[in-house]
Amino acid sequence: MGSRRVLITGATGFVGRWIRPALVVRDCEVIALSKLPAASDGDDIQWVYGDLLQHNSIHAAVSLARADTLIHTAWDTTPGSYWTTSRNLAWVSASLQLFESFIKNGGSRIVVAGTSAEYDWSNDADLTEGRGEHPNTLYGVCKDSLRRMTEQWAFINNVSWAWGRIFCPFGPHERKERLVPKLVSMLAANKTVPFDSGNLVRDFLDVRDLGDAFAALAISDVAGTINLASGQATSIRTVVQTLAEKMNMLDRVQFNTLPEPVGQPDRIVADIRRQTNELNWQPAASVHDRLIETCQWWENKIATQPKR
Amino acid sequence: MGSRRVLITGATGFVGRWIRPALVVRDCEVIALSKLPAASDGDDIQWVYGDLLQHNSIHAAVSLARADTLIHTAWDTTPGSYWTTSRNLAWVSASLQLFESFIKNGGSRIVVAGTSAEYDWSNDADLTEGRGEHPNTLYGVCKDSLRRMTEQWAFINNVSWAWGRIFCPFGPHERKERLVPKLVSMLAANKTVPFDSGNLVRDFLDVRDLGDAFAALAISDVAGTINLASGQATSIRTVVQTLAEKMNMLDRVQFNTLPEPVGQPDRIVADIRRQTNELNWQPAASVHDRLIETCQWWENKIATQPKR
Repeated sequence: MGSRRVLITGATGFVGRWIRPALVVRDCEVIALSKLPAASDGDDIQWVYGDLLQHNSIHAAVSLARADTLIHTAWDTTPGSYWTTSRNLAWVSASLQLFESFIKNGGSRIVVAGTSAEYDWSNDADLTEGRGEHPNTLYGVCKDSLRRMTEQWAFINNVSWAWGRIFCPFGPHERKERLVPKLVSMLAANKTVPFDSGNLVRDFLDVRDLGDAFAALAISDVAGTINLASGQATSIRTVVQTLAEKMNMLDRVQFNTLPEPVGQPDRIVADIRRQTNELNWQPAASVHDRLIETCQWWENKIATQPKR
Repeated sequence: MGSRRVLITGATGFVGRWIRPALVVRDCEVIALSKLPAASDGDDIQWVYGDLLQHNSIHAAVSLARADTLIHTAWDTTPGSYWTTSRNLAWVSASLQLFESFIKNGGSRIVVAGTSAEYDWSNDADLTEGRGEHPNTLYGVCKDSLRRMTEQWAFINNVSWAWGRIFCPFGPHERKERLVPKLVSMLAANKTVPFDSGNLVRDFLDVRDLGDAFAALAISDVAGTINLASGQATSIRTVVQTLAEKMNMLDRVQFNTLPEPVGQPDRIVADIRRQTNELNWQPAASVHDRLIETCQWWENKIATQPKR
């Protein structure tokens, strides 16, 4: 445990930024890779700049980092387009090259951000690792394929690897188009919010907890695929109500005034037995408490934004 | 039908070399891509040189070719190592980039060489497209993953595609380490041939017929995965006996003197209903007759080799 040297890709991303401090508190040396020349945020880590979609960047970043552990979270996650963009193919290629380069440069453990989209979503039961992986989106198929290839390649080459599946993260710095920031900003602007029934059920987890889970996974010897989630079935209606109540604006939300979403699975919830029993990890706070904190974070951010 | 402009990768390979003439007789213009500066063999086609594992080569080859149809057969097939080599990962990356570059340059149909190794081989029934794809080798997983990604990407981007699964090809120019050429050369040198029981059952198809099947597939509008095979269950013992009898040397083969192969599936045979009913294609000759022809081809080749 600890004193590992960890290279993170996507280190300025929604998830990656929270993995950094979680590694630091675990006494890891952190090398953060990003294509953005980001500020160091004052935390005690090194930065390497490079674009993984540029082949020369991969080798340069990996050989500069000389890390023993890799956490690979970089991917195209542009809201709206990431399900179908051909850039998913480019990210598969970049990831395969990254893994090979990392091992050739002395690395020994690879941890990758997977996704609940690898599962067959027509299954309403809790989703268990190794069962029902039948994605039907390009994003899901590309992540699933990358995992299948990585598994075989790691087995043959005796590489330690783990694949942490992300479900429905929320929290600070989420993209503004997404549920929590969009709702809070509409209510903060005193708008009425038309909504559908909100009956879809998801597995929400605060991104700070998710970052902590990835750090725990990186320094563990857990192998293969593991859901990183709350394991709690929370309806979108509950999320919306929690946020609106916190803001004392529940009357502004008009449920059942928008048509129900089409083609969305009813229920996406993780079986977290591996996480609980093998990784021995659990979130530091409940989904409810984290929603309240996150709401406050967005309210503060909105309040301190320059007015136009 | 016909008058297509077809780019073939792996055009000097075991399968690719037989696709070329099969396209020419179908009135296609053929552009052959190879990293080997091969002689043109006298057939009326164009050659483009390039190494698909070099990213610049892909774009250069595709934009030079200006083809409407791509047949992608290039891969690492080095006997012994191709099941496990990390080059499988590089071929997945190269293939994804090739497909994208091909469509961006005006191509409209992509035909790819798949493999029986995509199936779960513990299944003793005839192998049917879309059922039981559970590979357990790196080679099989990489081809399977490439197919899954190509399927989703092609669907989203409205690309016409087909995936021809190869089973157990034999014929002229096969690698010398493999069953037919090895057996014929041992018998031609008057050696005794120790063998196991030969009870494993495979789906053999002459590579000239296989090349013809790929050409038929390329100019068809058949979509998705299709087995390209004889559909005949032939034991390895039958193959060995056929060749040895043709050479009048059956007494040289000593069955049941080697240990049985370990970890090899008993039976790998294709369901060829799609090939028969949708592609409307069948081999020009029986497996038996093609084995006799192939034996003769190797005998002639051995007879005309310079002696040492």
